[in-house]
Amino acid sequence: MSIDLRDIFKNKDEYLNKEVTIQGWIRNHRKQKEFGFIDFSDGTCFKHLQVVYDNKLSNFADITKLRIGSAITVIGKITPSLKNSDDVEMQTTSVTLEGDCDEDFPIQPKRHTREFLREVAYLRPRTNLFNAVFRVRSVAAHAIHEYFQDRGYVYFHAPLITASDCEGAGEMFQVTTLDLDKIASLGKVDYSKDFFGKHASLTVSGQLEAETWALSYKKTYTFGPTFRAENSNTKTHANEFWMIEPEIAFCDLEEDMNIMEDMLKYVVKYVLDACPDEIAFFDSFVEKGLKDKLVKLINSEFVRIDHEEVIRILKEADVKWEFPPEYGEDIAKEHEKYITEYFNGPVFIKNWPKDIKAFYMKQNPDGKTVAAVDLEVPGAGELMGGSQREESYDKLIKRMDELKMDSASLDWYLNLRRYGGCVHSGFGMGFERLLIYLTGVENIRDVIPYPRTPNNCDY
Amino acid sequence: MSIDLRDIFKNKDEYLNKEVTIQGWIRNHRKQKEFGFIDFSDGTCFKHLQVVYDNKLSNFADITKLRIGSAITVIGKITPSLKNSDDVEMQTTSVTLEGDCDEDFPIQPKRHTREFLREVAYLRPRTNLFNAVFRVRSVAAHAIHEYFQDRGYVYFHAPLITASDCEGAGEMFQVTTLDLDKIASLGKVDYSKDFFGKHASLTVSGQLEAETWALSYKKTYTFGPTFRAENSNTKTHANEFWMIEPEIAFCDLEEDMNIMEDMLKYVVKYVLDACPDEIAFFDSFVEKGLKDKLVKLINSEFVRIDHEEVIRILKEADVKWEFPPEYGEDIAKEHEKYITEYFNGPVFIKNWPKDIKAFYMKQNPDGKTVAAVDLEVPGAGELMGGSQREESYDKLIKRMDELKMDSASLDWYLNLRRYGGCVHSGFGMGFERLLIYLTGVENIRDVIPYPRTPNNCDY
Repeated sequence: MSIDLRDIFKNKDEYLNKEVTIQGWIRNHRKQKEFGFIDFSDGTCFKHLQVVYDNKLSNFADITKLRIGSAITVIGKITPSLKNSDDVEMQTTSVTLEGDCDEDFPIQPKRHTREFLREVAYLRPRTNLFNAVFRVRSVAAHAIHEYFQDRGYVYFHAPLITASDCEGAGEMFQVTTLDLDKIASLGKVDYSKDFFGKHASLTVSGQLEAETWALSYKKTYTFGPTFRAENSNTKTHANEFWMIEPEIAFCDLEEDMNIMEDMLKYVVKYVLDACPDEIAFFDSFVEKGLKDKLVKLINSEFVRIDHEEVIRILKEADVKWEFPPEYGEDIAKEHEKYITEYFNGPVFIKNWPKDIKAFYMKQNPDGKTVAAVDLEVPGAGELMGGSQREESYDKLIKRMDELKMDSASLDWYLNLRRYGGCVHSGFGMGFERLLIYLTGVENIRDVIPYPRTPNNCDY
Repeated sequence: MSIDLRDIFKNKDEYLNKEVTIQGWIRNHRKQKEFGFIDFSDGTCFKHLQVVYDNKLSNFADITKLRIGSAITVIGKITPSLKNSDDVEMQTTSVTLEGDCDEDFPIQPKRHTREFLREVAYLRPRTNLFNAVFRVRSVAAHAIHEYFQDRGYVYFHAPLITASDCEGAGEMFQVTTLDLDKIASLGKVDYSKDFFGKHASLTVSGQLEAETWALSYKKTYTFGPTFRAENSNTKTHANEFWMIEPEIAFCDLEEDMNIMEDMLKYVVKYVLDACPDEIAFFDSFVEKGLKDKLVKLINSEFVRIDHEEVIRILKEADVKWEFPPEYGEDIAKEHEKYITEYFNGPVFIKNWPKDIKAFYMKQNPDGKTVAAVDLEVPGAGELMGGSQREESYDKLIKRMDELKMDSASLDWYLNLRRYGGCVHSGFGMGFERLLIYLTGVENIRDVIPYPRTPNNCDY
């Protein structure tokens, strides 16, 4: 097989003055009378290779006609670049066309808007920006797996189709094999005839199931797709996205925050180390100062502060709020922004009012708050959320009753508290939020290969 | 935090004669007048630790009453085991109850049937068998990521909700936010009001989308859930399962087979190295000879043979077939078994009859076969399937027309052939098939944490 550009750039010295075969695509093409220059990429790394060929090649005339976007095989010698001695280029022995590219190829060597590129999402990884974005997506995913696997966490595949609707985290997509036309003509719905014999949906979170794994393996994490049928058309909402949900037994809220902080720093550092070209590109063309932002995060110590204290700071601030901060209530985007600027770094806001948080969170002795935490990061807002889980069977039942939840359908979840339950905690991180933070790309549609949003389900 | 048993067993010498704190669960408990013995597991490794305590502890009487399944914190010194000098145990300073376990705890230290354990799926990883199975699931998943990431493949998250129904790989689950009761009362279905403005389903494969990534990144792979709404209640069918689908540009069928073989050997070796206790347990209690089977696979060279030749061998065999083998037709389980026994090892069967394979497979010059391959493995049958993909736009259109497929909805897929298309190939591996092979556990319901099968959607 052909050599990947990635290997050539990684082991430049080894390949220098050697003849190699490479296969990839023409990104740009300049021709002169005696020479031609192909801007060549095989997609395996951010950098392109300059392929130089001259009119001594028997098919010189044919090569000059090769169009942008075409797939080619090139044989040639790796030589020091004439322009930049640190770099390499190729002096070409042969160029063979593998696949032609029609004239209407949408990805031409010019600036395309991100909106336009969304329309041709299947071609956008052939641009520098999206080549970088989706490589960072891949590398960051691996960093997350490495972090948890190296520390003995068991990777848990949460079920995607679920008959439970208990987390209350959002609206759900229904999953069915019932014939809707038949329902219309018969005038009734019979769930006993549905595939699972009952109403089923796509999961909004694997957390409750992950807790069953934590109480068996001590440490577990999910990394998989989740779904919300929210009808929101914002830059940060997609209806199908990937989540990481670690869950740890014998772990309280403080230790939970330690893990959140440690994991985030690990992943950011991993991407900085593995993708220097991509990060440099984002820093230059997407978000000025991105690299400094990431380095600063790695070196900062995250502040830990109670929700109540945050409200006090916000109230005392000399700011005219659009949403006045209030004890016992949620905080708005403008508050998140203020508080990370106030502390000039990432902030864990903990011990939230019970009434605005989920039923499974550990109730604090004050009777008003729960041991929940959100991580607020400068320039990104909320990046993760976690909590200690309520381990008292009685308190959990009481809370579910207050919220008029059907505890019978969650008997297994409740039983975890009867069968060797213990202090345990976990958190969730939306993978795309992390990617927006890592790349500086602002719209979630630009960090998911084929995003699903209201009225949009192409590919 | 407490130390994981995994770390103690891994670094026995370092911990010997040191005092440590461990947290986990009581798997068994024997008491004598002066001593007690707790079979302790924290789930972080297959092995348990024997926790020995004596009546010098002030709460000796209380400790003896601790029930199986309870969560405890133990402080004590790691000492050489009295029974087995290679092993360690703990001489205990203190035992604290973290979470009691009710008397009706279903996982008692006795043999439970797998059918029974499926009924309490949320507790089964607390048994030795399932602790091992789902750790191997986690380790094998990581092995797959490492294999591809180390070789520069870009991990691709295929969309799960899809409006295309073109792969024809099986029946699909519908995804909707339409109100079925309302459909029944109104007597009509209006897909323009559905969430995506059209009919949507859960994907049966990410391959077609992965090809778009291969033609941008050269090498890509998916690893995610896929769904089939097949109403089959067999040991090998689940309706939600995980698939790995690599896709490689500038790669023909021979190279595709090289990668399939290399990847499988890598993953099997990785699991053998990382999970020796688990594999030894499966070998003793689940499938005699499992370890030899796996070692043999790593050391074998996979046979490569045409489908036509396989039929010839089957026809010439002195066997009374339930399904007589026929040229141009698919082969049955009994044939798969025979052929792997015939060659005494894994067999790639290639160049299959066109009419029984998918539209996207590369048409061979003979006009009758396609460049497809199935890997048959002794004791497992078909473990992977792949093909070179048809790179000719015209041939692809013609084949879709023959099969009465709607090519308009796959315009993007076809366009890949117009915009720098090239020889490319890929394959798919059902993750659960691999796990059945690795563990010897026969039923797919026992290698998926919470399996979805017809009329079964618990948790």
